[in-house]
Amino acid sequence: MRLRVDGERLLRDMAELAEIGRDPAGGLSRTSFSPEDAQARAWYAAKCEEAGLTLQLDGLGNSVAGLPGGDDEPAVWSGSHLDTVPRGGAFDGALGAVAALECLRRLAETGQQLRRPVHAVVFSDEEGNYNHLLGSTAMRHGFSEEELAAMTGRDGDRLVDALNGWTWARGSRTDTRIDPARLHAFVELHIEQGPKLEQQGIRIGVVTSIVGLSGGLVRFHGRADHAGTTPMDARSDALLAAARFIGAMPGLARGSGAASVITTGRVRVQPGGSNQVPELAEVSLDFRDPSRERVAAMLKAIGRSAQEAAATHGVTAEWHADEIVDPVPLDEGIRDIIRGCATDLGLSSTDIPSGAGHDSQRMALLTPTAMIFVPSRDGRSHVPVEYTTDEDVIAGADVLLGTLYRLANT
Amino acid sequence: MRLRVDGERLLRDMAELAEIGRDPAGGLSRTSFSPEDAQARAWYAAKCEEAGLTLQLDGLGNSVAGLPGGDDEPAVWSGSHLDTVPRGGAFDGALGAVAALECLRRLAETGQQLRRPVHAVVFSDEEGNYNHLLGSTAMRHGFSEEELAAMTGRDGDRLVDALNGWTWARGSRTDTRIDPARLHAFVELHIEQGPKLEQQGIRIGVVTSIVGLSGGLVRFHGRADHAGTTPMDARSDALLAAARFIGAMPGLARGSGAASVITTGRVRVQPGGSNQVPELAEVSLDFRDPSRERVAAMLKAIGRSAQEAAATHGVTAEWHADEIVDPVPLDEGIRDIIRGCATDLGLSSTDIPSGAGHDSQRMALLTPTAMIFVPSRDGRSHVPVEYTTDEDVIAGADVLLGTLYRLANT
Repeated sequence: MRLRVDGERLLRDMAELAEIGRDPAGGLSRTSFSPEDAQARAWYAAKCEEAGLTLQLDGLGNSVAGLPGGDDEPAVWSGSHLDTVPRGGAFDGALGAVAALECLRRLAETGQQLRRPVHAVVFSDEEGNYNHLLGSTAMRHGFSEEELAAMTGRDGDRLVDALNGWTWARGSRTDTRIDPARLHAFVELHIEQGPKLEQQGIRIGVVTSIVGLSGGLVRFHGRADHAGTTPMDARSDALLAAARFIGAMPGLARGSGAASVITTGRVRVQPGGSNQVPELAEVSLDFRDPSRERVAAMLKAIGRSAQEAAATHGVTAEWHADEIVDPVPLDEGIRDIIRGCATDLGLSSTDIPSGAGHDSQRMALLTPTAMIFVPSRDGRSHVPVEYTTDEDVIAGADVLLGTLYRLANT
Repeated sequence: MRLRVDGERLLRDMAELAEIGRDPAGGLSRTSFSPEDAQARAWYAAKCEEAGLTLQLDGLGNSVAGLPGGDDEPAVWSGSHLDTVPRGGAFDGALGAVAALECLRRLAETGQQLRRPVHAVVFSDEEGNYNHLLGSTAMRHGFSEEELAAMTGRDGDRLVDALNGWTWARGSRTDTRIDPARLHAFVELHIEQGPKLEQQGIRIGVVTSIVGLSGGLVRFHGRADHAGTTPMDARSDALLAAARFIGAMPGLARGSGAASVITTGRVRVQPGGSNQVPELAEVSLDFRDPSRERVAAMLKAIGRSAQEAAATHGVTAEWHADEIVDPVPLDEGIRDIIRGCATDLGLSSTDIPSGAGHDSQRMALLTPTAMIFVPSRDGRSHVPVEYTTDEDVIAGADVLLGTLYRLANT
């Protein structure tokens, strides 16, 4: 008989977790190091205890659960995160964290003989309330006290203050690095957060790479003037240049490649009076592609587009680009195992790049790493309507279980 | 000998007033009912006392200065305002208020025999910290306690609270109406706030009309999505529609007429994360033309343009238009007098519409009203670099003096 997760238990756990951090305004607000995040950690710890698992915490709240003893061999890790964006959904992160716990429980209760231990991990602050991929980045290279002291949340609150009231951490905040020799592999189950699997009617996505990305700010500087007395032709309107620039971004993304995306998510206008010609218009940029070269080419093209828009409207433009976060290819060998497990379970699968950042992006720098995607309804994510069907939740966990079993025994 | 103002005294007064409310960030911040505004009122009251003028205040802080006695005849009024926008300039309002005072002093000290009294007026809150044209509107129709209680400032502070700490008011706040029978005419000297006089090398603008205007908000509703995982073609990006709409406004204004202006001064984007596709983009509108028909036509065209931009980007649009403020034609007879005074003084003059709103817009509903414009350097206004030359300040005041003299004796 093929090894399967306890689907009912998994769905029950997902449903229980989805009650923690419900926001009256809709969705789940379980932002990292909030009381709601702590409640989720307590719930998770109780589940571990119930299953006879030991839970180890580091100084930033990353947790690793495993069966007691037998930690001489490099371990196979799996997991994700329990924190959410404000008013987010019940599957992003939660699925991978709960499924890893379910796999560990299932391997234990079915008495599987494993050559290597399997551990379930929960990373802190994946969503970047304080720092994007905080926990997994800390496992990779650690942070200094100064770096931690400089991290502030969306509301301007300091990470170190949040940690002072946080009970789900143990030991040094700076000594969080994981020795790669302790690891054999890492596998993360996650919802796709995009529409491709659903559109193609495919059950399992075998993630080929995690996207490369960059971002930054373009600032257009024009001249403030009176909205009533300044003729149209006498204006240097920063917002008109910004509008032209924003409008050019979809074409620039399409010209870059089918997997390229560019988002302008925020605009700030000064002085901002409805009867004042805008002096400053600042536009945020987020752009991604699985190829570093295409990310670098977009970075340059965005700068040229800003200059062109500025020149058209008689204003100036500055382009403050962030550093490029390199795309990460995922492990070919584990991808083969995932594909094989899906086939064994009668599930269709396809290669797919990840357009979102994940803790796997950091883990891939420590150990062979792969990701399994399951479909997201309408491709929606980071919103209250984020949804994956029960069948796909169970299918993804079954593929994860098979993959972890094989990795633990080969 | 032709009647002239005391140019040195006028410039000295302008320079003294320009020291009141200096903002460390640049320009003058003498917003209405602020301590700086009160300081300007105290300075003005001292000047009146020095000149032997009586100063009458109403319950909202409008002041009327005149020579004691002889108020049986309808009076000729002149004046403007002492309040400024935040970080504004030293001429908008100040010139008209100080020049009217100078004219009154000059008529008195040269012992002119006048058939009608001449009064110098300072209106409260012309710039609309609480309500655009508050003082002159109160003279026209008054406000109820409820209306006053609902008025809040840019920072959310209440007008009634500001008035409670304000010493430059007397009597009822609601009983502020002026009986039109008390007035013979109103004339306001003001800087142009636009570039036309300077560009044409003309000294005096004879204002034909005050612009008609409207405004409002266009809201584009799209769908929030993940910036990394949502392909460009799967998005309903509200900001892309807003950018297309904003970019269409200059063409729409040019198509309406040479005197038409449309300004988009403020944009609000939600959810506003740099890694989130915009769900909401709200754009403020301000549009003006001397013709009511053209204002009404722009109002409709803006709505059509919003719908077109929304349809192009697969989002929806709502257009919340304000009521149209009718344009006001200024008095032909007084315009002839102004033109004649300019000619007598050897000053070039031209007809010019006002693109800004002014207290004259309200006074024109009470009594025959006209405005005199002098050039603004580079057409700049509501900014620290707002400037009018000494020669133009004096020339404008001389034309005002001649006009008031003729109005008082015909």
